[in-house]
Amino acid sequence: MKGKNTAFVGEFSTFSGYFCGMEMIVGHKKLEQLVESVFIAMGCLPEQARTATEVLVAADLRGIDSHGVARLSGCVRLWEVGRVQAQPLINLVHETPSTAVVDGGSGLGLVVAPHAMQIAIEKAKLVGTGWVSVKNSNHFGIAAYHAMMALPHDMIGIVMTNASALVAPTFSAERLLGTNPICVAIPAGEEPAFVGDMATTTAANGKLEILQRKQEAAPIGWIQDEQGEATTDAHALKKGGALLPLGSDRTHGSHKGYALGAIVDIFSAVLSGANYGPWVPPFPAYVPMPENQPGQGIGHFFGAMRIDAFRTTEDFKSNMDNWIRRFRHSRPIDPAQPVLIPGDPERETHARRLQDGIPLMDGVWDDLLAVAEKFSIKI
Amino acid sequence: MKGKNTAFVGEFSTFSGYFCGMEMIVGHKKLEQLVESVFIAMGCLPEQARTATEVLVAADLRGIDSHGVARLSGCVRLWEVGRVQAQPLINLVHETPSTAVVDGGSGLGLVVAPHAMQIAIEKAKLVGTGWVSVKNSNHFGIAAYHAMMALPHDMIGIVMTNASALVAPTFSAERLLGTNPICVAIPAGEEPAFVGDMATTTAANGKLEILQRKQEAAPIGWIQDEQGEATTDAHALKKGGALLPLGSDRTHGSHKGYALGAIVDIFSAVLSGANYGPWVPPFPAYVPMPENQPGQGIGHFFGAMRIDAFRTTEDFKSNMDNWIRRFRHSRPIDPAQPVLIPGDPERETHARRLQDGIPLMDGVWDDLLAVAEKFSIKI
Repeated sequence: MKGKNTAFVGEFSTFSGYFCGMEMIVGHKKLEQLVESVFIAMGCLPEQARTATEVLVAADLRGIDSHGVARLSGCVRLWEVGRVQAQPLINLVHETPSTAVVDGGSGLGLVVAPHAMQIAIEKAKLVGTGWVSVKNSNHFGIAAYHAMMALPHDMIGIVMTNASALVAPTFSAERLLGTNPICVAIPAGEEPAFVGDMATTTAANGKLEILQRKQEAAPIGWIQDEQGEATTDAHALKKGGALLPLGSDRTHGSHKGYALGAIVDIFSAVLSGANYGPWVPPFPAYVPMPENQPGQGIGHFFGAMRIDAFRTTEDFKSNMDNWIRRFRHSRPIDPAQPVLIPGDPERETHARRLQDGIPLMDGVWDDLLAVAEKFSIKI
Repeated sequence: MKGKNTAFVGEFSTFSGYFCGMEMIVGHKKLEQLVESVFIAMGCLPEQARTATEVLVAADLRGIDSHGVARLSGCVRLWEVGRVQAQPLINLVHETPSTAVVDGGSGLGLVVAPHAMQIAIEKAKLVGTGWVSVKNSNHFGIAAYHAMMALPHDMIGIVMTNASALVAPTFSAERLLGTNPICVAIPAGEEPAFVGDMATTTAANGKLEILQRKQEAAPIGWIQDEQGEATTDAHALKKGGALLPLGSDRTHGSHKGYALGAIVDIFSAVLSGANYGPWVPPFPAYVPMPENQPGQGIGHFFGAMRIDAFRTTEDFKSNMDNWIRRFRHSRPIDPAQPVLIPGDPERETHARRLQDGIPLMDGVWDDLLAVAEKFSIKI
């Protein structure tokens, strides 16, 4: 692999890929081509391979590296052990004018999620809002991709998903919740959209992985050890520890982060019939499935609300612009760090990486090459 | 007033009120009788006075003392200066099958909110879910009262409200958001309902007021001073400081608490046409209204989702019971402090106070007596 790897150096003009210190920088089109070839080789239908690729690479473009192509080899391994179906039967199993439950047919969440979000959008067109809970799915990339699907329709998009248990509720020594993100995307007029995309934990697992790689300590308030004591050991999760809900401890409101993570779990999985709490399937294919699972696969929740189901789109957007400008121009604590609107950092990263390429950690690139080799894909 | 006050000592059997140290303990029926008489004297219609009373005293019964009868004199003062209408014209100004915008007619939020939540419930009966954004309203007591209205209908209730600016977004030295609570009430089967009711700040303002009264310091992470520096001064808000969003600081995820508070503000006020951000009217009648207000009154947001719009109520409730039991019986860090389900502490306080009476701080009771005297109400 190393030979192939070094072959990229200096070939930026042709392959959009070059080394930069420890990082490999790859153009997004090159990356998309590789990812799409892998999904096609797995047996995905061309249109679904295209969608899954767009969702996955959107994470890398927006700077959420932990949810992008770094997950590709994991998806392939889940397919190899039969936990992901390349051509899933995605079924609408129940509906009312404003709601639906979708069975993802064990498909890639990267395919199931946009399908379900589209149903929410269609329902919102007809009755003002649409709400879809999904069972029997898998990892769906970044929530923001799906929530932002609502924006061109002048709708608010709301997306949640559960995930395998890494988080301890307040007072618990056990891990019972995933990092269970919530994303809300809200259109504006002249200003860019508001896109709040957040794990319901103090820190995302991806940030912890960065500290692990750098052999650095974690801030107090991110994790607890197996006994439930605060720790700075970035490796504590592997030793039976847990991530902490947003708020860190009871004094600082961790019971609120716990409640938010719980709401995501219930909307995504108890409403749909997916697995919840400690029974959510793990992402790594080598980790055994929890016993006595009460549902199917992992669960998601999607919502779309048409702006003009409430007031005129013009009035709303002009107020949103005013809201955004007032917040952006508020008096900062440090003049060098202005107040941000949710979505600002990801939008800036997206624009930069579209232009300059996507930096991949060395391990990630090697991983992609290994996947490509497995399917005899030429890079 | 003091004479009347002491007259209560020992009269528990007759008046359900007695002194206990610094606190006055009053039976909830006695308290409701007093509050209802005040709303009637203000000119509220009997049915609305009854509703407003039930909502207000529900806060005291559930232990959210800062949102209960302690607010009554403030409501009266808002009515005196014409900012609250005793007989509001509550109008449905726009609707689709699953949505509505309600103009609260400057009424008591205590009356407007149950009215709007009922509309959400009726829409959910017809099309699966109902979503109502409200403008031109006032303080609505505790969000949990309104969200829990969904429970007897086998629906999930979702409630938000904005409030006057006390909270600084991440990186801001200015206060731009209220404590903007979110409440989600979810029915279960044999287990009591899940009721997560939380301000999107690290600590509620009520907790800070308790520290102020006791002359105690606040934990680092609750508030910042006028320059945006962390402080333990519980009086910092009066000196230009601010409450902090859930997460406390950037390292511990305050940008997530800020995003949550912002979402509540936008759903409650930008969707409806109420005031948002720094323009939300202050609760104390003596504080001048912000200039150049972009909307009307304060804003709320209500949602109701019918369980059987997703799956059978039986399946959902049996899964919720399983969810609740698994979490409640998880391994605790300290065996003396079991893991709680959101809503447990409030439900226990409610049961206890129904039985034993509601403890009121001395100042609150004096305040109630002064209001009663203003309207020549006999206690």
